[in-house]
Amino acid sequence: MKKYSFKNDYSEGCHPNILQALIKTNLAPQNGYGYDDYSEEARKLIKNKINDQNADIHFVSGGTQANLLVISSVLRPHESTISAETGHIFTNETGAIEATGHKIHGIVTADGKLKPEHIQSVLDSHTNKPHQVKQKLVYLSNSTEIGTIYQKQELKELYEFCQANNLYLFLDGARLGQALTSEINDLTLEDVANFTDVFYIGGTKNGALLGEAIVITNDNLKEDFAFQVKQKGAMLAKGRLLGIQFLELMKNDLYFDLAKHSNVQAMKIKSAFQNRGFQFLSDTFTNQIFPILINSQIEKLSGKFDFYVWKKMDEDNSAIRLITSWATSDEVVEGFLKEIELL
Amino acid sequence: MKKYSFKNDYSEGCHPNILQALIKTNLAPQNGYGYDDYSEEARKLIKNKINDQNADIHFVSGGTQANLLVISSVLRPHESTISAETGHIFTNETGAIEATGHKIHGIVTADGKLKPEHIQSVLDSHTNKPHQVKQKLVYLSNSTEIGTIYQKQELKELYEFCQANNLYLFLDGARLGQALTSEINDLTLEDVANFTDVFYIGGTKNGALLGEAIVITNDNLKEDFAFQVKQKGAMLAKGRLLGIQFLELMKNDLYFDLAKHSNVQAMKIKSAFQNRGFQFLSDTFTNQIFPILINSQIEKLSGKFDFYVWKKMDEDNSAIRLITSWATSDEVVEGFLKEIELL
Amino acid sequence: MKKYSFKNDYSEGCHPNILQALIKTNLAPQNGYGYDDYSEEARKLIKNKINDQNADIHFVSGGTQANLLVISSVLRPHESTISAETGHIFTNETGAIEATGHKIHGIVTADGKLKPEHIQSVLDSHTNKPHQVKQKLVYLSNSTEIGTIYQKQELKELYEFCQANNLYLFLDGARLGQALTSEINDLTLEDVANFTDVFYIGGTKNGALLGEAIVITNDNLKEDFAFQVKQKGAMLAKGRLLGIQFLELMKNDLYFDLAKHSNVQAMKIKSAFQNRGFQFLSDTFTNQIFPILINSQIEKLSGKFDFYVWKKMDEDNSAIRLITSWATSDEVVEGFLKEIELL
Amino acid sequence: MKKYSFKNDYSEGCHPNILQALIKTNLAPQNGYGYDDYSEEARKLIKNKINDQNADIHFVSGGTQANLLVISSVLRPHESTISAETGHIFTNETGAIEATGHKIHGIVTADGKLKPEHIQSVLDSHTNKPHQVKQKLVYLSNSTEIGTIYQKQELKELYEFCQANNLYLFLDGARLGQALTSEINDLTLEDVANFTDVFYIGGTKNGALLGEAIVITNDNLKEDFAFQVKQKGAMLAKGRLLGIQFLELMKNDLYFDLAKHSNVQAMKIKSAFQNRGFQFLSDTFTNQIFPILINSQIEKLSGKFDFYVWKKMDEDNSAIRLITSWATSDEVVEGFLKEIELL
Repeated sequence: MKKYSFKNDYSEGCHPNILQALIKTNLAPQNGYGYDDYSEEARKLIKNKINDQNADIHFVSGGTQANLLVISSVLRPHESTISAETGHIFTNETGAIEATGHKIHGIVTADGKLKPEHIQSVLDSHTNKPHQVKQKLVYLSNSTEIGTIYQKQELKELYEFCQANNLYLFLDGARLGQALTSEINDLTLEDVANFTDVFYIGGTKNGALLGEAIVITNDNLKEDFAFQVKQKGAMLAKGRLLGIQFLELMKNDLYFDLAKHSNVQAMKIKSAFQNRGFQFLSDTFTNQIFPILINSQIEKLSGKFDFYVWKKMDEDNSAIRLITSWATSDEVVEGFLKEIELL
Repeated sequence: MKKYSFKNDYSEGCHPNILQALIKTNLAPQNGYGYDDYSEEARKLIKNKINDQNADIHFVSGGTQANLLVISSVLRPHESTISAETGHIFTNETGAIEATGHKIHGIVTADGKLKPEHIQSVLDSHTNKPHQVKQKLVYLSNSTEIGTIYQKQELKELYEFCQANNLYLFLDGARLGQALTSEINDLTLEDVANFTDVFYIGGTKNGALLGEAIVITNDNLKEDFAFQVKQKGAMLAKGRLLGIQFLELMKNDLYFDLAKHSNVQAMKIKSAFQNRGFQFLSDTFTNQIFPILINSQIEKLSGKFDFYVWKKMDEDNSAIRLITSWATSDEVVEGFLKEIELL
Repeated sequence: MKKYSFKNDYSEGCHPNILQALIKTNLAPQNGYGYDDYSEEARKLIKNKINDQNADIHFVSGGTQANLLVISSVLRPHESTISAETGHIFTNETGAIEATGHKIHGIVTADGKLKPEHIQSVLDSHTNKPHQVKQKLVYLSNSTEIGTIYQKQELKELYEFCQANNLYLFLDGARLGQALTSEINDLTLEDVANFTDVFYIGGTKNGALLGEAIVITNDNLKEDFAFQVKQKGAMLAKGRLLGIQFLELMKNDLYFDLAKHSNVQAMKIKSAFQNRGFQFLSDTFTNQIFPILINSQIEKLSGKFDFYVWKKMDEDNSAIRLITSWATSDEVVEGFLKEIELL
Repeated sequence: MKKYSFKNDYSEGCHPNILQALIKTNLAPQNGYGYDDYSEEARKLIKNKINDQNADIHFVSGGTQANLLVISSVLRPHESTISAETGHIFTNETGAIEATGHKIHGIVTADGKLKPEHIQSVLDSHTNKPHQVKQKLVYLSNSTEIGTIYQKQELKELYEFCQANNLYLFLDGARLGQALTSEINDLTLEDVANFTDVFYIGGTKNGALLGEAIVITNDNLKEDFAFQVKQKGAMLAKGRLLGIQFLELMKNDLYFDLAKHSNVQAMKIKSAFQNRGFQFLSDTFTNQIFPILINSQIEKLSGKFDFYVWKKMDEDNSAIRLITSWATSDEVVEGFLKEIELL
């Protein structure tokens, strides 16, 4: 029998509601390229949730695609993006942004989160015009790639800083559900829409087969976005596949229920480690946790579960990364808790 | 009740076998990014069919994506592609190829098909080195965008011409199934692999929800292709979605059965028009037909069915385009034949 | 002794005034990157001549550079350019424009000149949004690559058409001097500025060592242009080299005198061929002429002078291209006229 | 009267020999695009000096151009470059490299110089294939942007490390003359050719009006380079202008004499500061020095000379940057030394 994998939150297929909707709608003829009825309806649900009927919403297949589309659409050739060094665009997208012609300034942060002073420091070191790139967009992830989240006040301050400095703020929401349902979160989806210029709602890592919903709220960024989607190969002929999924996820807040489930499962495991006195690489409240274990303990655990060894702390200890998902069952978690007891 | 649409072959969802496979495999944990069991198995089936165990096979979401990936991976910055003016990359992909930095030479053809003499003429007019781009890749579609297909001898001659002229040959197979099951076809999938350097097998227009299988047979073009897939945002986290579909399509030749069905339905309609004495814009043997009708006839037909008016022939007559699909039922076709009788 | 070359108008160095100015200014310390006194003064002269004190003027090294800079600065990723097929950007710049990501629509013309109906036909065939590129800029050359020129009314109509269709008009003036001093010209430099959004004044082909002066008159296109110049490697550290040359050329209309000289020399040769009854490939009034000769005559001439055989007309006859320059002396012309007499 | 400027080494025109050669050759007709006699002869001199008759040599206008040309020609789309954070390409070229599609990894160094361990650390953090870019080229400058130089053993070790790791080594020689004539240098031009795959010899900052000579010694990197030069707008129609300059500079080692002169002048100033007990931001032996002064001293000096305040050390002290050139006269230096005495 296969070991259960805590390696990521996209190991399984999708939530059963989505499969049922695919079956039910399968033979209904629809327009292509995102102009189908389901996509339209899903857009309406999202617009209602963010309380902005003028938002532009585009469904695309994945996170790297969403990131490169937004950034290449927004920036002129000499303009650049600011990101944490842990940011997905900076380190894990095979240079996708640079491939569209733009520099990313990677910022070293304590917790994967950008602060106004980080951005200010980049601005301060790029005053030699026109010999240096011009910063025009700030990229952040919520939850971040290392499981932390932004508080409302933090996001608001970043947005105001960006507005004051003629910068756009773009939020990568590949794990936005997990952020917004974290026990320490105080942001709503509407807040996210209000305090950014463009963001996306990640489906792939929260119960969809694939799909991210790009939401553009700043009018300056809306024009001709669909041309970019097509040009970058991100426009599905059967856009219905994305529409149907977001329709199911947005209905009755299934999206948030799934994200919350993944968080809760992670927090159970976190508590178990804490109760046993383990330390963590960072203090997270979403579906990613990074406990520090003795190497022999890691070896023992890895006999029964799959996960990544994330960072070597010293000769004897390393942090591991555990990710739970919408599909991580209580049985699996209980089985894992028992193993923790035995460490 | 909605009118039946002959506008394209991607109006419906997918073949039911695919839905069943999605349900059956849904909770099985799998590696991401195309390294899942289903993708591996689908690759094996394709390798067997083309009789090349060393081929590299990458599944991606759509045709534009496949085209831009292959071309940008193969070419150096100063190299260009040759295509028919009717080629999808030349006119219907929002400049996707140019966006990766490469010029396309568009060739006027009679039937959407490239011949060695077309290519020779481009080579002949680009001898002013280094002031002109260097031709390095020939792009063709089979079936073409206007429904025609290549015979084995034609493809072989093109390939030999390309080899003699240090050009790569790339075949866009968005509708490869329809080509290979046309009543006038004499090519096999193995022939296609033998007489090209890289090609793809289109799923989106032949019964899949999405997906194209890029098959690289020339060793020179294999290195690091996966990096390009990731960089261009074409690597699905849940690559299983593509693997499962191609596994179903390739099993028991479902792929070819579906394509043949769509061809057969189109040929029934073609015969009906022919029997009534109508002319055609081009003589096609796949799932696209272009009958020329009097405008009043078009108006009448369009009251009951959806289709594109393709080309104005003169004041009184226009060619329409009718596309059938794997899902076009006998009932629909019979209904349409009756309308033809009434014209 | 070397044969005199009619191959192009950049075979010699530069006008002596420029060399004298280089000597005179050589040790005067100056700011780099185009902020030197000479560049500033040259900008003033140009602004005065076009009667627009708000124009932005950037000096760069060559025509391909000027073309790629302007076009890549103006266009968003999904936008394209329209050019004659004979346009320098379409065929003789090794894909420089495509390398910045943009498609060029090449138009077949009778005389190298674009007309509103040419542009309209491109617009008409690109209505399938967002699957096709969006036309945003029209590129033309004056004089054209085949020696013809635009009349005032023609340029005005093109400009008005562009304005009505939300297109920018960009004029490549690599041989602008020759156009504006042609015996059939009715345009002034001020007209050129008024009836385009951006254009450049070519120095390389009219007596400078190198250098083109890009003049941006449309406010929309001015922002941050210097960043593009730097990014594309087109900003000379010793910008003085370009400033000094344009200062000399613009002073006392030397620029126009040199261009006129080159035209006059060409027209003398044209008359001589005409008097002897020769035909021409096209009827030109600038410094390029294309007489059609019998092959044996070409062979004879080429024993004493260098030139390009431009186009084979039939088995026995070909058109040759002769280009004169600011430096083509009366002696050379007289010598050539004698050879014509002997044909 | 203008204050003398120590701001950079490109404030003046060019060495008088170059002006004389321009005058002497001015009316000799020559082929365009670098195929002139002078360029050919200059290439021969360089080949002899590096003892490699098979090297490919291309003359271009400036350093940013040379950098973007080499890097974009060498790398495939998913490949990246490693540079010091102080590297010109990383921070002072307006994103020129990223604009061609490639990521630069910026390394924090003590002295602007890369070591094998720096490169190893980048390789170590990029093992997640294909989700991260692939490192393929190492970029270094000699002398560096902060005036330091590589010793022979250091360059050799870097080159061997690169070879062992399948990386190309590219040396930016914008100030190569100053490096090779530094009093602590032990490298020859031939060594530079032997221990790199491609490098360039900078003219702009060492007595030319403009121009860098790109020297490609690795056969893998030679193919079709001229196409790239043309495409990026870096191929001068009057390539003679570059050829003539490098011919003059390379004749009788004028290039090295000029560089040595600039170093000597800087070292005189350095000694004077040292004798007076001043500290330096870094210990340099080329034509750039960075003494640390009290702010009031800076104010006093800046009344008589122009220079950049480079880095604030604390409230009361800052480092200034002084650059000397081939044209910095003994009189100027003596005048400056007197001012140092008065501090």
